[in-house]
Amino acid sequence: MRTRAAVALEAGKPLEVMEVNLEGPKAGEVMIEIKATGICHTDEFTRSGADPEGLFPAILGHEGAGVVVEVGPGVTSVKVGDHVIPLYTPECRQCASCLSGKTNLCTAIRATQGQGLMPDGTSRFSMLDGTPIHHYMGCSTFSNYTVLPEIAVAKVREDAPFDKICYIGCGVTTGIGAVINTAKVEIGAKAVVFGLGGIGLNVIQGLRLAGADMIIGVDLNNDKKPMAEHFGMTHFINPKEIEGSVVQEIVNMTKTPFDQIGGADYSFDATGNTKVMRDALECTHRGWGQSVIIGVAAAGAEISTRPFQLVTGRVWKGTAFGGARGRTDVPKIVDWYMDGKIEIDPMITHTMPLDDINKGFDLMHSGESIRSVVLY
Amino acid sequence: MRTRAAVALEAGKPLEVMEVNLEGPKAGEVMIEIKATGICHTDEFTRSGADPEGLFPAILGHEGAGVVVEVGPGVTSVKVGDHVIPLYTPECRQCASCLSGKTNLCTAIRATQGQGLMPDGTSRFSMLDGTPIHHYMGCSTFSNYTVLPEIAVAKVREDAPFDKICYIGCGVTTGIGAVINTAKVEIGAKAVVFGLGGIGLNVIQGLRLAGADMIIGVDLNNDKKPMAEHFGMTHFINPKEIEGSVVQEIVNMTKTPFDQIGGADYSFDATGNTKVMRDALECTHRGWGQSVIIGVAAAGAEISTRPFQLVTGRVWKGTAFGGARGRTDVPKIVDWYMDGKIEIDPMITHTMPLDDINKGFDLMHSGESIRSVVLY
Repeated sequence: MRTRAAVALEAGKPLEVMEVNLEGPKAGEVMIEIKATGICHTDEFTRSGADPEGLFPAILGHEGAGVVVEVGPGVTSVKVGDHVIPLYTPECRQCASCLSGKTNLCTAIRATQGQGLMPDGTSRFSMLDGTPIHHYMGCSTFSNYTVLPEIAVAKVREDAPFDKICYIGCGVTTGIGAVINTAKVEIGAKAVVFGLGGIGLNVIQGLRLAGADMIIGVDLNNDKKPMAEHFGMTHFINPKEIEGSVVQEIVNMTKTPFDQIGGADYSFDATGNTKVMRDALECTHRGWGQSVIIGVAAAGAEISTRPFQLVTGRVWKGTAFGGARGRTDVPKIVDWYMDGKIEIDPMITHTMPLDDINKGFDLMHSGESIRSVVLY
Repeated sequence: MRTRAAVALEAGKPLEVMEVNLEGPKAGEVMIEIKATGICHTDEFTRSGADPEGLFPAILGHEGAGVVVEVGPGVTSVKVGDHVIPLYTPECRQCASCLSGKTNLCTAIRATQGQGLMPDGTSRFSMLDGTPIHHYMGCSTFSNYTVLPEIAVAKVREDAPFDKICYIGCGVTTGIGAVINTAKVEIGAKAVVFGLGGIGLNVIQGLRLAGADMIIGVDLNNDKKPMAEHFGMTHFINPKEIEGSVVQEIVNMTKTPFDQIGGADYSFDATGNTKVMRDALECTHRGWGQSVIIGVAAAGAEISTRPFQLVTGRVWKGTAFGGARGRTDVPKIVDWYMDGKIEIDPMITHTMPLDDINKGFDLMHSGESIRSVVLY
């Protein structure tokens, strides 16, 4: 069949909206009609050419929501008509990683996904001249129709609006999950979030959900403050507007008459800047502070610190897709949205048809949008 | 009163054994007759002048065992005649750190201890001419008699031999505790220990105690192998004798037919070398590997890695005194020794009187000793 898609033909070029060929689902695969998709910084990381593992031509997009329109042989967990969210981190429930109970990083289809292919080593997408087009993160939601392995779709309730829950396919889950699954923040904690973009806002609402006492946001842009406060930020630091270091500022803010050591119980980097990642570690509390890296760093960039920071009890960790097991956890997060436990609507600042998808990237660069969503 | 002590008069000089003055215990303090003390690399780190925070003159030593001979006003938890192990990490059970339940790093007397003083800001030791001598790590076990705060002594059973359990005051607890308290290793785990000195051997026996399946030791010196095997090492790697990197070697060794990702569940650095610390992190399993830094690095040295290592699920942490709460956990470890659950005797390779203490440092440098113990 044919479908309309925004294709990344070459690194650094705008996407081109065109008709492409899409083969039907093979065994264990499903075809999804994408109803809405967010535009994420990770798409831009690859589109721009900054991603050393980027492949072209490719159909980007990994933050979608839609409906199952066809299932391949042997598919049992979803059926035609089911509402689903595509998962760039699948959940096979059978590999050593899934069965470890310690990680969400399912490895069932990792090798082929990294090569931009379906599990059988081929692509379902091609140009009208027959040239294969790479899948992207196993999702390719910048196509109106796409094919995914069954293990890479989360079935969700049918009354949830596609144009909002698509964001649960990446940003919402990454931010909230970092708090709940990776850091396991407890009620009363003091936490710091570096970077108040879309991920940072979701970390903040995750912290509010977890019952944190202090939610300190750090950003160089004061314009980020009102929205962050809306989502639960209790204190704001603009590093340009303080004397001394942001680390010392946070240590001082978190001291109490009883605890004169100070430091955050948890910190989260949502900037991708390796210098900020170091600050995020070092502002945490001696003895138990945990710092979680969420942001994707530039290729080759390294984090560093003195080992003393760890020997005195700080823990450095990271998170991918918020530590969420997609098929298990994403439907719960959709429920939380529908129940009003979390908010998404104010973060979807722009919507557009597929033809205008490059405007979404422009809005990201100008800092005008939190999230742009393409509606098919 | 007067006592004999080995005094570090200046950085880089041998210790000098001499008579010094020792004031009696003040409120909340106890005087201990030290019966035996180990000589640890940390003592040498300070003696040599490598420790940027080293103070002189000082009475070093922090790995002792002895008997309470006098108690100051208000002391309630120990009495004259009790057998005790001095604690360089105290346990006040009242500060924010102790009460957090998340760390052993009691802060009750941290500031004065770091200045080489008792909690009231003065020293109990002085030269015969009246010049004050610094305490060291709050212990100063290189003196036949010493004074410590009550919160910095662990009461232990009276049938345990001083010349062995002194090692529980630092090395044994640090190594075993890193496994049990910090990493919380579970039965069946695959673990790697970098550096097969005294700490490394204690990590190994901690792993055996925890029921680890694979205990891989890494050392540049093949002579370390037999003793490490005695304590439970199951596999040995000499990085000089393999093709390729030690990280890849460990990943390959830990693969199974079911798990083709490979990597250690836990790794421990007992070298203090920051390059080794990086290898220790990167050889752990994607998704859940934890690496624990035990070794003390050179002043100013930094660890580094790509954040991708953490984002894909590895955790970097450290440990001080094995995460042990001294007054609570040290008596249990003494019991484990007396019950035969752990071994200490083969690690005490040399003993000597105080007059020969500098020979103990020589044996450390030549690599002949695992642990030298001074017997008073």
